[in-house]
Amino acid sequence: MADTWLPTLITNTPQEGFELAITLSRRGVKYTQPDVNVLKSLRPEYANSADSLTAASHVIAINFQTVAAANGYWRK
Amino acid sequence: MADTWLPTLITNTPQEGFELAITLSRRGVKYTQPDVNVLKSLRPEYANSADSLTAASHVIAINFQTVAAANGYWRK
Amino acid sequence: MADTWLPTLITNTPQEGFELAITLSRRGVKYTQPDVNVLKSLRPEYANSADSLTAASHVIAINFQTVAAANGYWRK
Amino acid sequence: MADTWLPTLITNTPQEGFELAITLSRRGVKYTQPDVNVLKSLRPEYANSADSLTAASHVIAINFQTVAAANGYWRK
Amino acid sequence: MADTWLPTLITNTPQEGFELAITLSRRGVKYTQPDVNVLKSLRPEYANSADSLTAASHVIAINFQTVAAANGYWRK
Amino acid sequence: MADTWLPTLITNTPQEGFELAITLSRRGVKYTQPDVNVLKSLRPEYANSADSLTAASHVIAINFQTVAAANGYWRK
Repeated sequence: MADTWLPTLITNTPQEGFELAITLSRRGVKYTQPDVNVLKSLRPEYANSADSLTAASHVIAINFQTVAAANGYWRK
Repeated sequence: MADTWLPTLITNTPQEGFELAITLSRRGVKYTQPDVNVLKSLRPEYANSADSLTAASHVIAINFQTVAAANGYWRK
Repeated sequence: MADTWLPTLITNTPQEGFELAITLSRRGVKYTQPDVNVLKSLRPEYANSADSLTAASHVIAINFQTVAAANGYWRK
Repeated sequence: MADTWLPTLITNTPQEGFELAITLSRRGVKYTQPDVNVLKSLRPEYANSADSLTAASHVIAINFQTVAAANGYWRK
Repeated sequence: MADTWLPTLITNTPQEGFELAITLSRRGVKYTQPDVNVLKSLRPEYANSADSLTAASHVIAINFQTVAAANGYWRK
Repeated sequence: MADTWLPTLITNTPQEGFELAITLSRRGVKYTQPDVNVLKSLRPEYANSADSLTAASHVIAINFQTVAAANGYWRK
């Protein structure tokens, strides 16, 4: 992937940081399966499964740990 | 999601921090599947499965690590 | 849940900290499924499955990381 | 459990720390299923499954993070 | 593996760090199954499964935590 | 296990650290199932399964976090 999609881990707010964690989670999928059509075809599989949604939230939680630490937890 | 749902990671007590961790876990699901009706329809699937409940508790535990660190573990 | 069940993460000993980690893990389940009767009915499902017990120990391990860090690992 | 099984997280060597991580992982199981006979009966289920053994090693790895941090990674 | 594939964890940008996390994740697989032909034959199995892709993204997220910490989160 | 297999977490390079993480992951399995013949018999089960290989890489990633932190991320 030649484009720049991650110039920094710094965000203005915790919520933007959480959204960046979602981006990181999706990019982890996309690097492994770059075909957008395949990804779209898989969406019903996980978007309608409680366990798959929990697994997605799990990955987001891990990436949010990283983003939150990078931002000093937006303490100030 | 245009609304502000995460203005800060700081909470007054560990228990409020744990409840924020639950919010984060649910938001991770909701960003992936925003349709509230689908989410409601999936509830019986995981709320009556021991393994699904353990998986939910797992995600909460990870988010609680983040919130607890942000709050300096409420040491004072 | 209106009651106060988590006033602090500080414990006197590592063992009490481990037991607090178990409480946190169980609360993560209980917030998701508050019906005690359902929880009781699910017990045979996980208490007799090696993989479910490993998953339970996994969540405890993550919560113990949090509690141990909060207590400075009880080093003194 | 009334007995004291975890007086400290400090160990003399990394290897003893790894073995303490195993103890923590097993205790996480035992708090959830205290019946030793049940635990013994489950052993063939996980001790002969590659995925179950990987899951066991996973929990040990998480507990080892905690023990290693407690010991300052035995750097000196 | 005699070749040097990991001389440093330091990268110039977060995005390069994320790509290094992908490399680490793949190497973890390759050390366990060094046969490239087997790895290729398994690709359809996980590249077309939502849950497998989420699991891959999960491992990347964990390795990215390590790389990000190593780089001080590229804060400057 | 009476032999000394983990005298230190310090390694000269990140790559040696990654290989130590693999050793830790395997030892976690071996402590749970010490019978080498059983372990060998299980190899085809996980070495030819994409999900099992991802799970193996997952455990390595967690142990690598520990080893990397122990070594100050080999920053100098």
